[in-house]
This record gives sequence, C-alpha cells and structure tokens, in this order.
Amino acid sequence: MELVILGFNSAIPTKRTSPTAQLLISNDRHFLIDCGEGTQVQIRKSKTGFSKINHIFISHLHGDHVFGLIGLISSFSLLGRDTPLNIYAPKGIKELINTQLKLTHSWGNFALNFVELTSEKSELIYEDSKIEVHTIPLKHRIYANGFLFSEKTKLRKLDIEKIRQYPEIEICDYRNLKAGKDFIGQDGKVIENHLLTLTPEHSYSYAFCSDTMYDVDIVPIIKNADVLYHEATFLDEMKELAFKTGHSTALQAAQIAKKAEVKYLILGHFSNRYEDISVFKTEADTVFPNTILPEELIKIDFKKLDRI
Amino acid sequence: MELVILGFNSAIPTKRTSPTAQLLISNDRHFLIDCGEGTQVQIRKSKTGFSKINHIFISHLHGDHVFGLIGLISSFSLLGRDTPLNIYAPKGIKELINTQLKLTHSWGNFALNFVELTSEKSELIYEDSKIEVHTIPLKHRIYANGFLFSEKTKLRKLDIEKIRQYPEIEICDYRNLKAGKDFIGQDGKVIENHLLTLTPEHSYSYAFCSDTMYDVDIVPIIKNADVLYHEATFLDEMKELAFKTGHSTALQAAQIAKKAEVKYLILGHFSNRYEDISVFKTEADTVFPNTILPEELIKIDFKKLDRI
Repeated sequence: MELVILGFNSAIPTKRTSPTAQLLISNDRHFLIDCGEGTQVQIRKSKTGFSKINHIFISHLHGDHVFGLIGLISSFSLLGRDTPLNIYAPKGIKELINTQLKLTHSWGNFALNFVELTSEKSELIYEDSKIEVHTIPLKHRIYANGFLFSEKTKLRKLDIEKIRQYPEIEICDYRNLKAGKDFIGQDGKVIENHLLTLTPEHSYSYAFCSDTMYDVDIVPIIKNADVLYHEATFLDEMKELAFKTGHSTALQAAQIAKKAEVKYLILGHFSNRYEDISVFKTEADTVFPNTILPEELIKIDFKKLDRI
Repeated sequence: MELVILGFNSAIPTKRTSPTAQLLISNDRHFLIDCGEGTQVQIRKSKTGFSKINHIFISHLHGDHVFGLIGLISSFSLLGRDTPLNIYAPKGIKELINTQLKLTHSWGNFALNFVELTSEKSELIYEDSKIEVHTIPLKHRIYANGFLFSEKTKLRKLDIEKIRQYPEIEICDYRNLKAGKDFIGQDGKVIENHLLTLTPEHSYSYAFCSDTMYDVDIVPIIKNADVLYHEATFLDEMKELAFKTGHSTALQAAQIAKKAEVKYLILGHFSNRYEDISVFKTEADTVFPNTILPEELIKIDFKKLDRI
C-alpha cells in the first residue's frame, strides 16, 4: 500500500500547496481520495497516470475537497476514456457534476456511476477480491465521511522446500494450501497447513479522516489501522475555533491516533495562518511520536514505514 | 493598459501552463477574462491581488475557460469579500455557479450579479467613465464571445506655459479646456483649444478572441485595436481539424490581425500536441510580423509595445 499526497492545504489554494487530494495505491488499484481544485495537474506531476483511477472517494462537498473533480472528469472525456468511473460521495454529488457536464457540454463516452452516501453509520461501500472500503462517519459543519481502506487477508505463501518432502501433494492442492487449509491425503492423513506454508504478507489498512472535529466515536472503526491521516487545521491553542468550525487540532489528531493504536499518523489540512507547518508535528509528537508531516507529491510506502 | 497572461493552454491543464485566463488592467480596473481551473493560484502568483477584480468576462462555457470560477468565487467568500462581483458570460453561467454554491454551501456575503449573454451581434455590455466593453461574436462549437476593451478618449493636457499668457483664463476654466472646448472670454474673444492644450494620451484597446474558428466577420469590430489576442490551437497544416473543432490556425490568426490592422497580435490556446510553441510565431510572422508568444505570468504593458 502506497499513499501519494497530491495536496494538503485547507480551504483556499495557495502557492504553497494544493487543497486536499490523495492517491492510495493498493494491489495495482489507484483510489483517489478527495479532489480539490488543481488535482488533475497534481496527478500529472506525480506521474501516477490517469488511466488506473476507477474509483474516487469524496469526503464532503466543501469546495476544497471537490472543486477539481469536474475538471478531472472532463479531461478523462477529452482523453477518450471508455471505462466506467465510480464516485462515492455525499448526496448531491450527482447534481453537482451532472449540472456542470450539461452546461459545459462535457459528457464523455464512459459510464459515470455515483454512489451517493447518506448513512450516519459506518458502511461497506466498496469491495473486491483484494480490498474493501468502509466509511468513517465524521463530525463536520456538513455531512462528511472518512474512508477506511483495508486490504483483505493475503494468501499464505507456499513453503516449496517443505512441500517437496510430501510427494502426495500435487500442484492442484496449492490453492487450498494458500487459502490456509490443511492437506488431507487420499488415505485420510492430515498435514497441518502451518507445516507447508509461510505467514502471508501483512494486509495494510489506511484511514482517511478529513474534515472533522475531535470525535472519539471514530476510534473503534479505525482501530489498529497502519496509517491514519487526520486533519489538524489548528494548533491546540485555537481549539475553541477548531470546535466552532468543525475542525481538529494537531493535539486532538494525535489523541485519536493514540486511542486507536494506529501505527503512524499523517497530519494535514493546515490553516494558512501557520507559515511553518513543523509546529503541528511538534505538538502531535507530545502525545503520539509516530507523526508524519505531509509533503506535496511524496509517496509514502507503508512497507517502508514498518522499517523505521 | 496592461495584460497579464495567467494561462494560455487549451483544453487540458498540464504542467506546462494553466488553461485560459487573463487579467486586463486599465485605469486601475482589473478585468478578469476567462477563468480555467487553477486561475486563482495564477492570480496569487501574479501578485495582482484579488480585491480589485469586480468584473469577470467568460467567453464560453467550455471547462478550460470556466472551471476555475467557482473556486475563485468561493475564495472571495472565505476571504470575507463584501463588494459586488459582476460576471458577464453566456446564458447558463448563473445555473452553473449557483448550483455549485448551493451544493457546496459556499454562499458569500457579497452580491453576485450575472449578465447572461445571448446576442449573436456585438453589444455594449460594460461602460464606466474610462472604458467600455463590447462583445465580439465568435464562431465556435458552442455559443461564444470575445471581448473588446476600449479606453475612452482621454482628457487633453493643459499647456500651462501657454495658458499663463492669458490672465483672463481662470482655474475654473480648465475643465472645459481638458474636454477640448475653446476658451471664450467675457468680451466674446475666442482662444482655440489647440493653442492652450496638448494632445491627450493614446486610448488603448484590447480585443480578446478565443475560442473561435477563422471568421472575417469579427474584423470590423476589432479594427485598429492596439492588441489582439487570437487563439491559434493548430498550425495551418491542420486547418481541416481546426475548422472541424471550431478553432483557428496560427496563420489564420495572423490573417485576421492583418485584415483588422491591429498593432500587435498575441497567440495562445495551443494544442498540447505541439511541444515547442515557437512554431506558432514562425507561421504567423509570415503574414503578420508583430506577433507575440505568450508566457505564463508575463505582464504586457501596451505603452511599451509602442516603443518596440
């Protein structure tokens, strides 16, 4: 699992960085999370390509998380895309996009499937053979969800050296072994799976939480995630303003990370009032030391984080 | 009159440059012309500021000319703007913007006045004491207008040395002299204006024409403009494609500039298929030598062009 930070600014785009957008890459799937203005140029700069983006997740319908979506969809059309595009977002997204497509004559030749979210509870919104995505209900000024991306348990690895010691095991048995089943011979003899296979690779999970005020209700949902992205618009000295505007402080983000026992915390969505964003890490580190500051266009490889 | 090129790309935003957006500055008025995705960041980079933009002119409702408008309006709201904003654009702009403001909860505390254009003929759409703006009907795939910005004739300059030779001329007479009127004394004696004043500064005009196919019908409207911006999406070897897509070639842009006897021609809206944009100038120069290639964020001072 790899995360590309396309933009991490709050509210108003600046010269410093673009508004919120991230690309999560897992098992060759490219999931786009939020799409502020200018995201399509950020994707170009990241050199990750447009063609593998088939699923876009929008946390909420504030402009800094969605104004880049129409431009991206239009560019897909201009580039001749013909594969379906699936968009998971709060109710209203369909009207928002379709009105613009109609008035700007930008219809493409690909299906645009909208999954409009309205639930106040965590729900499974995407699943395939390798990964599933659940919503994380957030508390913001308007209806908002985070997203939990969880890789499914991976197949066990065959221990070929060991397997060769049992001539009765054939290639057609490998599938069951990878799935964790014991081997049962024609004579009823059982060879336990752990004697023939190795532990599978770790299945990673990523929780994206923005925009939200401090809310412990999300803790059970994101429990033990490998990486948590949690917004930190303000420092704790402004926690009243954070509460009032439906945002969090760096300290609060770190408290959530600690309670949820995640491995790493990435902060973002910083208010433009802070020139030097290192103050957010300094504050979060007091509670949760595995805090990472975002950088525009960096690619974070979850496997490499384990080695830190 | 000064022109800031904020972006000059066609269709899809790239790393090279942003889609179409320009800022025309005349008599301390900042007119924004077209507003592709990312324009607000380009304005920030140009350091021309947001606060003087009170009038925005949109040529047509294709995304690369309008997708940045909602983000700019939202940022105005977030920054606490309270002065009215006037938007001149084809019919549909009001629904396009208001739908987005509604669904993204981005209403601001300033009046948003839409002037929706539908006329197929050139019309006066803006006028104040210093400048007027007429539409230039264009031929594109959808309804489109260019815009002609014309400074009004400026006041004559007082020739104080000469005026002092006539003690009967008082300060209260200066206003009439500046307006070009002769001086008439109480005894009926006439002193002709040209003996007391100097020729006023040149009144500049700027014609913006994008997107459009080659169309000689615009020539009388833009006749003798100081500067013409004319799209040149293709080179002339692709003039069939230009015609089919409602665009022009560099040669055609130069032919229009020559027929209209403008002083300078700026090209733009180049197709991404051309790596090196100098080929557009080379082609246009064969017909119209005063051709200028755009550069991102350059400020073109019309007064200095006269001295070239």
